[in-house]
Amino acid sequence: MSTAEQFVVGVDFGTLSGRAVVVRVADGAELGAGVHEYAHAVIDDQLPATGRRLPPDWALQVPDDYREVLRTAVPAAVAAAGIDPTQVIGIATDFTACTMVPCLADGTPLNEVDGLADRPHAYVKLWKHHAAQPQADRINDLARERGESWLPRYGGLISSEWEFAKGLQLFEEDRPLYDRMERWVEAADWIVWQLCGRYVRNACTAGYKGILQDGHYPSAEFLDGLAPGFGTFVADKLEHPIGQLGSAAGTLTAEAAEWTGLPAGIAVAVGNVDAHVTAPAAQAVDAGQMVAIMGTSTCHVMSADALREVPGMCGVVDGGIIAGSWGYEAGQSGVGDIFGWFVDNAVPPSYHEAAAAAGESLHEHLTRLAAGQAVGEHGLVALDWHSGNRSVLVDHELSGLIVGQTLATRPEDGYRALLEATAFGTRVITETFGDSGVPVKELIIAGGLAKNALLMQIYADVTRLPLSIIDSEQGPALGSAIHAAVAAGAYPDVPTAAKNMGKVRRGVHLPDEERAKAYDQLFELYLELHDYFGRNSRLMRKLKSIRRTALETR
Amino acid sequence: MSTAEQFVVGVDFGTLSGRAVVVRVADGAELGAGVHEYAHAVIDDQLPATGRRLPPDWALQVPDDYREVLRTAVPAAVAAAGIDPTQVIGIATDFTACTMVPCLADGTPLNEVDGLADRPHAYVKLWKHHAAQPQADRINDLARERGESWLPRYGGLISSEWEFAKGLQLFEEDRPLYDRMERWVEAADWIVWQLCGRYVRNACTAGYKGILQDGHYPSAEFLDGLAPGFGTFVADKLEHPIGQLGSAAGTLTAEAAEWTGLPAGIAVAVGNVDAHVTAPAAQAVDAGQMVAIMGTSTCHVMSADALREVPGMCGVVDGGIIAGSWGYEAGQSGVGDIFGWFVDNAVPPSYHEAAAAAGESLHEHLTRLAAGQAVGEHGLVALDWHSGNRSVLVDHELSGLIVGQTLATRPEDGYRALLEATAFGTRVITETFGDSGVPVKELIIAGGLAKNALLMQIYADVTRLPLSIIDSEQGPALGSAIHAAVAAGAYPDVPTAAKNMGKVRRGVHLPDEERAKAYDQLFELYLELHDYFGRNSRLMRKLKSIRRTALETR
Repeated sequence: MSTAEQFVVGVDFGTLSGRAVVVRVADGAELGAGVHEYAHAVIDDQLPATGRRLPPDWALQVPDDYREVLRTAVPAAVAAAGIDPTQVIGIATDFTACTMVPCLADGTPLNEVDGLADRPHAYVKLWKHHAAQPQADRINDLARERGESWLPRYGGLISSEWEFAKGLQLFEEDRPLYDRMERWVEAADWIVWQLCGRYVRNACTAGYKGILQDGHYPSAEFLDGLAPGFGTFVADKLEHPIGQLGSAAGTLTAEAAEWTGLPAGIAVAVGNVDAHVTAPAAQAVDAGQMVAIMGTSTCHVMSADALREVPGMCGVVDGGIIAGSWGYEAGQSGVGDIFGWFVDNAVPPSYHEAAAAAGESLHEHLTRLAAGQAVGEHGLVALDWHSGNRSVLVDHELSGLIVGQTLATRPEDGYRALLEATAFGTRVITETFGDSGVPVKELIIAGGLAKNALLMQIYADVTRLPLSIIDSEQGPALGSAIHAAVAAGAYPDVPTAAKNMGKVRRGVHLPDEERAKAYDQLFELYLELHDYFGRNSRLMRKLKSIRRTALETR
Repeated sequence: MSTAEQFVVGVDFGTLSGRAVVVRVADGAELGAGVHEYAHAVIDDQLPATGRRLPPDWALQVPDDYREVLRTAVPAAVAAAGIDPTQVIGIATDFTACTMVPCLADGTPLNEVDGLADRPHAYVKLWKHHAAQPQADRINDLARERGESWLPRYGGLISSEWEFAKGLQLFEEDRPLYDRMERWVEAADWIVWQLCGRYVRNACTAGYKGILQDGHYPSAEFLDGLAPGFGTFVADKLEHPIGQLGSAAGTLTAEAAEWTGLPAGIAVAVGNVDAHVTAPAAQAVDAGQMVAIMGTSTCHVMSADALREVPGMCGVVDGGIIAGSWGYEAGQSGVGDIFGWFVDNAVPPSYHEAAAAAGESLHEHLTRLAAGQAVGEHGLVALDWHSGNRSVLVDHELSGLIVGQTLATRPEDGYRALLEATAFGTRVITETFGDSGVPVKELIIAGGLAKNALLMQIYADVTRLPLSIIDSEQGPALGSAIHAAVAAGAYPDVPTAAKNMGKVRRGVHLPDEERAKAYDQLFELYLELHDYFGRNSRLMRKLKSIRRTALETR
């Protein structure tokens, strides 16, 4: 059977739904897709089984919603592709992260264990479960105090979203359940476990979210320093053999074959993360090729040959994106959601009417008006910190700022200033990488914002980097399909598979030197504001503190 | 004839119309009013007689539009009051300033001279004619260079709106017309000239706008340094006997009696300025009583016994508000117009709909929503410099700023932050006066914004000053009426007349100590931003410069 007659299935597990895509091994052609929305979506209010109320900042999910994607979206994709399921040689998945499933030793999620359905900690803690911030603060304080060597690998800060903070919260808030739990499993690995019946811990989340560096986790001594008794967390619940990205975790079980309609025994790839798996889908496997997955927020991933400590990055992990390379990750907390906030809250009726009359969305309308401006014409510069700053300041107490408003300032001016602010934020990241010895040579854009041509051109002009755009509407699922093909042995490694199956339009937007020069002047002002308000965040922190006090004393 | 049967007429000449009010001498009761809109309004596009186009930043008026107010609004006010015109014992006027009329020696405006109707410089230069900025810059540069003693009396800066800058522009741009001009007359004095047939230069504009200090104007040597030949400007066109405020300039001529329907021979008071004349109307004649006339912008006027140099004030003039006291003036370039800009440009349709459903204006709607907040709850702080900063920074290259925005920031948050920003701006002014030895003890509010109770309470809480509110809808006209009564001899002086005829509701809004303390924290942040962006305005100046370049090179 030639690769032209071979297919793989990639399944992307997002925040609200799972998407399966059937891809041809030979050329990456996407032949059919199926989507399934999780029945329980995100649980942030009350438990589905019992109606028990949840505290603020919780975000849970139900594991069986993930299995349902295998049962419905995968067969739907195969049907839509019109292929014979026996031609499928492998399946791979990617997941949101860090999303954690508390399990028994056989992989049974605790919420499915008799008598535990009313225990909040028995459910999946979704990536955006933010109730473990106190635990994260203590992890960071102690790590700094002890000078833990792994801290700089995470830009100096461990997130409340990650494995240790969430695990410590469980330990402290429901000790009996913690004791009952036998494995603390990334959903990225749990779904693979469901497919092949074997638990393999993937190198990506183990590194980025599980603080596995140079083969070691944080020490028992460190963990006991956080909370007496927590010292055995790694040994008891976390430690497990690692699988490299692109390897096979095992083969499809009979049960999973029945769910999916795929042949039992085909390759099941090691788990992966939605952002990171997008890199090979965009053929970004070489050093200097930074992929920016731009949606409500932006995630940046890039491989490099060398290990460097980049201030304010999210993390650097050996084999975290491509086995054999160092994988770097950075991020911007708010991008598309800032534009959405502006459109929802700061645009007067006349613009809504004009957009409707022109048959445009408000985003399109403002973009068109803004596109008519010369660089700097609006007289504004903004800071894109409405959701805080992930890289390189790593400070969620920061907030948005706009300066330069006059009575002549119009909505399209503010909109464009916000587009530009996110581009300046990206330039700070690419320059910080470059200054740290990890040069960025190309920006490759994936995600929903890639279709805004003005935004893309602004990014090219501001960063002076050539901009390529992924040529797939379903980058993560395509990336997973690439990993499935490698796991099945159709290609020797992910870079080779990416070259054949990945899809990118290169150099779609090139920097214009005149505009780039004009942006240099605005970027200088952005940097001044960035450093004044970000390096010493006293003023913005004080504003947040005043706000909290005001809300408490109402 | 007792004062209960005596009446006076006050006429307020604004930017777009003139308003006459008939007032009872005994108690200041306002019995009738008449308004006349100027036929030519503000000429900023083309000359009415010939269609000749004007350059940018010009703003002209037609003097006969002012006479028409005397012919129509005054008789209308008398008719509305239902009084016998023979009971009127005096008339007084106030005017926008600095508004300049180029005249022949008999007071004929040059635009009424045969053959000059097509000469832009033959018309009235309205206060907001801003085309003399290059001349103002040179005046300031040379004054600083020569260490002119009068410069600190104006907070260190002479405005492009004032007599010398506008006069120098005329000298340089139409020398033949300048040579033809025999008098360079404030409209405030020109209208009095029309009423009584005598030219008397009022102490207020001569001081604030004409740089008359301690009996001296800028020297011929200084003026020749600006432009050879300009050295005789004061002696040839400007110098003239000064009349103190509240004095009679003369008596009503037969011609003016015919226009107005008032008795010939009644007292005509020395001219005055709309902002300054409002002080006695609000009974603010003592040291420490600062009147804030709050509309699109705010003008602050206050009397004091001592001469002090207050950094960034607009000016201090002997007898500039009340004869015998030092009159201080300061200002905020943008207040109501910033709120208006926000409402017009930054509020989404759902708010417009909710306001309409509640039968509220959008200002009322946002105010009601904002009023429900605790101090600091919105997490924002703004700089109110959308039109630059008049006091105490005196810098029109500054611009607006807002910091603290998150995805949860709503329109009422931004609106309230702007209300507060203008209150912080007022506090900077009152504190600067206090620090300079001119303490402010009470804020008395006049103007259209006084009716916004939330805004007033914010001002009281932010400044920790008791807030009084003028109890008249037509403060300037009432203030003129008070001057008419004094000029007619019904009262010995303006303070005595103000006590009887002025109207104010004292202590309408008192500071709340809890809220004041909360505002102290926000004010500290405002001050930090004020000094960072205002004391060294490099960033905001650079933004304006980038904008100008961008617009030029489009």
